[in-house]
Amino acid sequence: MTRLWNEPADFADEMIAGFVAANGRYVRRVSGGVVRSTVVPDGQVAVVIGGGSGHYPAFGGLVGQGLAHGAAMGNLFASPSTQQVHSVAAAAEHGGGVFLSYGNYAGDVLNFDSAQDRLRAEGIPCETVTVTDDISSASVDERHKRRGIAGDLTVFRIAAAAAEAGYDLAGVTTVARRANDRTRSFGVAFTGCTLPGAEQPLFSVPEGRMAVGLGIHGEPGIDETDVPTADELAELLTARLLTELPDDIAQTNGGRVVPILNGLGSVKYEELFVVYGRIAQLLGDAGVEIVDPHVGEYCTSFDMAGTSLTLLWLDDELAELWDTPVDTPAYRRGSVVAAAHDDTAASAETTLDIPAASEGSRAAAALAAHAVTVIAETIDTHVDELGRLDQIAGDGDHGIGMQRGARAARAAAAAAVEGGAGAGTVLVHAADAWSDRAGGTSGALWGVILRSIGETIGDDDAPSAASVAAGVAAASDGVTAYGKAEVGDKTMVDALVPFSASLTQGVAAGATLSAAWQKAADAATRAAAATADLLPRMGRARPHAEKSLGTPDPGAHSLALIATAIGALLIDASDERN
Amino acid sequence: MTRLWNEPADFADEMIAGFVAANGRYVRRVSGGVVRSTVVPDGQVAVVIGGGSGHYPAFGGLVGQGLAHGAAMGNLFASPSTQQVHSVAAAAEHGGGVFLSYGNYAGDVLNFDSAQDRLRAEGIPCETVTVTDDISSASVDERHKRRGIAGDLTVFRIAAAAAEAGYDLAGVTTVARRANDRTRSFGVAFTGCTLPGAEQPLFSVPEGRMAVGLGIHGEPGIDETDVPTADELAELLTARLLTELPDDIAQTNGGRVVPILNGLGSVKYEELFVVYGRIAQLLGDAGVEIVDPHVGEYCTSFDMAGTSLTLLWLDDELAELWDTPVDTPAYRRGSVVAAAHDDTAASAETTLDIPAASEGSRAAAALAAHAVTVIAETIDTHVDELGRLDQIAGDGDHGIGMQRGARAARAAAAAAVEGGAGAGTVLVHAADAWSDRAGGTSGALWGVILRSIGETIGDDDAPSAASVAAGVAAASDGVTAYGKAEVGDKTMVDALVPFSASLTQGVAAGATLSAAWQKAADAATRAAAATADLLPRMGRARPHAEKSLGTPDPGAHSLALIATAIGALLIDASDERN
Repeated sequence: MTRLWNEPADFADEMIAGFVAANGRYVRRVSGGVVRSTVVPDGQVAVVIGGGSGHYPAFGGLVGQGLAHGAAMGNLFASPSTQQVHSVAAAAEHGGGVFLSYGNYAGDVLNFDSAQDRLRAEGIPCETVTVTDDISSASVDERHKRRGIAGDLTVFRIAAAAAEAGYDLAGVTTVARRANDRTRSFGVAFTGCTLPGAEQPLFSVPEGRMAVGLGIHGEPGIDETDVPTADELAELLTARLLTELPDDIAQTNGGRVVPILNGLGSVKYEELFVVYGRIAQLLGDAGVEIVDPHVGEYCTSFDMAGTSLTLLWLDDELAELWDTPVDTPAYRRGSVVAAAHDDTAASAETTLDIPAASEGSRAAAALAAHAVTVIAETIDTHVDELGRLDQIAGDGDHGIGMQRGARAARAAAAAAVEGGAGAGTVLVHAADAWSDRAGGTSGALWGVILRSIGETIGDDDAPSAASVAAGVAAASDGVTAYGKAEVGDKTMVDALVPFSASLTQGVAAGATLSAAWQKAADAATRAAAATADLLPRMGRARPHAEKSLGTPDPGAHSLALIATAIGALLIDASDERN
Repeated sequence: MTRLWNEPADFADEMIAGFVAANGRYVRRVSGGVVRSTVVPDGQVAVVIGGGSGHYPAFGGLVGQGLAHGAAMGNLFASPSTQQVHSVAAAAEHGGGVFLSYGNYAGDVLNFDSAQDRLRAEGIPCETVTVTDDISSASVDERHKRRGIAGDLTVFRIAAAAAEAGYDLAGVTTVARRANDRTRSFGVAFTGCTLPGAEQPLFSVPEGRMAVGLGIHGEPGIDETDVPTADELAELLTARLLTELPDDIAQTNGGRVVPILNGLGSVKYEELFVVYGRIAQLLGDAGVEIVDPHVGEYCTSFDMAGTSLTLLWLDDELAELWDTPVDTPAYRRGSVVAAAHDDTAASAETTLDIPAASEGSRAAAALAAHAVTVIAETIDTHVDELGRLDQIAGDGDHGIGMQRGARAARAAAAAAVEGGAGAGTVLVHAADAWSDRAGGTSGALWGVILRSIGETIGDDDAPSAASVAAGVAAASDGVTAYGKAEVGDKTMVDALVPFSASLTQGVAAGATLSAAWQKAADAATRAAAATADLLPRMGRARPHAEKSLGTPDPGAHSLALIATAIGALLIDASDERN
């Protein structure tokens, strides 16, 4: 378990601050993560990586000469937000375009893709390769659905070596894609890990047992056995990986391979060396030439006990790129010619942009900000419950992520009111703060909700029942499109769609906003509860884990809680007016 | 806990083999440990470090350009044997003499000192600095009694940088001693660790509590508190270390410091960064200039949850030496000019040296070898019990260490008999194999016992009751002198001295060897049991831990078990002869 934190909600920020304080020779902080603190040649492709925090040295520890140019560092086990990825990429960019790479998880795909769209819209060329090395997470026919684990390192490193060698963006992308195609990992776990401040582990493995193929956030594995001997584990890992060879290797029988035996956190170096000794023998017996073996911690999950073996099957070009030096906080190889320190000051904070607003909209702004406060209070009250629900269904960070986002939204809304904003701008600012600070999928989706409502009600007129209902309808459409989910997928959409439909119908039938809202909130509550009875549809990319029958979706549940609380606020507000 | 092993007794060997397989670019294996696999300039002082295994990257992971030239790698948490240290030092030596450095634990002092004596006797200049950085392990007035923990790294690195810079042996020793004088550490722990194959942790800390000053093998701490926040821990560590400054720093108020925040195994990087962020603030507030901060795992204890802060207070010379590049398996700094690979083959195995022996002695050799077999069988039977006793009194490795040594002795004795050796040589070979393979204090002492008996009975005549008793008396004197212990110190000496006295007395009174031995074994058994009633005398350097009242000393207990078993063998043997 983890033990050392101050406020759990501050953990990721404080971790990044301490990391930068300890590693100023390599990295400097920018909004959303870190970039190299050394000078990068103009025109070099910028390799930007990222993901949730809690996997050090992934991702910030891999920024430096010969490896990444920047890392977007999300909240614990949560994707960085679109803003974070965009901000880091913009800071890392040096005129050669941006190459994005990260492990294949739904939240990351959502946010990195959005950031890519935004970069391209700004005229910055951008390409992406998602890492899909975990062979236990989907069949070979569905390789694009596989999760990314410790194989991240091989793809990042090949891409970065190509960038340093002067490849253009297309060239970096091509060779990184080949590195991903030739990288395969297989992992096992003996225990889960406990996120800072959580009362229970995120997931667990029975004492004396080994989960085979378990993901690094507790995603389901494919088998469970007794803990084997070190030799037996070496045989399991090696045999699994040797069943799925690249075509050219399978044909020639042999090949060159970089093996990476990765510790997840509390399976320690001595144990890894015992296991590696047997792996080296087995690869040798199979006629495989071992190049530059790695035994250590490259992608962890706090103190999770587990290990994975990654094999990168080299070809001539990959071998040449692999043999280049690297110098980052946590990963060094060969001798790097030290670059000068980049003394560029961090870019100035963006100033608050408050458009002019009508008196009516400004008058409603206080109620809008109050609604955001109610959201934050509702989440505070239910944070543990949401975390528990998400432990069953996902990676347990829903409560913490929502709390982080809602608190940031509350502060942004208050600042906007202070600055004289109208109701629409209050919600738009709250939306941006939420998605930026929360990260992950739910952060992105709550950003869409608040922004949709805010943009619909605008600042020109006082919001009406009709404009609010239209805003919620826009939010419902936006979330459905953005999250690529449908009703029945056991997501927030299951509650949001009936909520919006009921609200629209009630307002159209002439009900007051508060009455229609309350009825809609009841519909959302029923729909959220009903997600517990759904067997989720499979085959759709999901954040981190398949969901369980019998458990309501935490995203749907939190939406219902928030809708109900705002309903009560609207009643109070209309009582005051009466 | 540790989970991955094959045979626990083989763990250290297999670990070293896997480590070397993964790190051939840095190290090559020699008897007793590893030396650099890169070319070392002639005349350079060889920095040889070492200690028990289980602390990776200490000690093998710190061998390479800019750091150690060789590491003696003992069994788990057990000192390397004299032979191991000597063998590694001889292989690492390049004409500039040998500089030995290691953490201050009794078993290590015993074996490194003996190796130093042997090197000097061979004409190789040799000096030693033991590392004593743990300020919680003894008062400032008894700094020489302090344990060495993560501060090892600073002393090793300064010594190595001086060696690479061309300092002679005296110069390396002087600057390394100053580095040790200016290095201070303070640690805390949340859990113990479990040695491979052990059923219980070596030591434990109550859930939710933090042991303050606990040693890396579970040596007693100075306090216990609830687990604090990350900031509170940072404040505790920093405040303790700032109370004991080098004189020049105290006078000038300020100074330059290299902070090393070390994780023991399962307190992970993210937590360490959060703690470090606050440490950096506190050092800054105290007017201290931070140089090259280190946050990571530099000296672990398997998956023990704990952390320590080390401060190296720089002066101009230390600062200059610190700023040199290093490239080892687990520790890299700056850019090293890669040296050529050293293709020297490992030195040939020493051939078995069997002196001529009389027919009588050769006839007795089989019984001598049988006695060694009985020892090994006795240890096999009691290995768990000995481990449990040692968990209370020491570091829990007594059973495993004895098993490893006795098995090696059995094989060596059998080989000697096979080669036509006399009884004396059989025991001498068994002695060398035992101390070489077991390591630690008990390994060294059993080497002294068997060698003393073997040298006394010799190969010229068949052993007699008188010569065996004289041999045991020599063993008793040798162990007392070598271990610097007296009767009543609650060590093996408490059983060996009365055993020897009784045997000598019985034989002098005309008893047969088997009768006198049995009576002596009874005396040893009573004396061993009586160690449970002793409160051990303090103030004497001990391996790893103070011992507890109420628990018999495992070394005395195992000696009594062995004496009793050999007594039964002697009865059987004399029955056969009658």
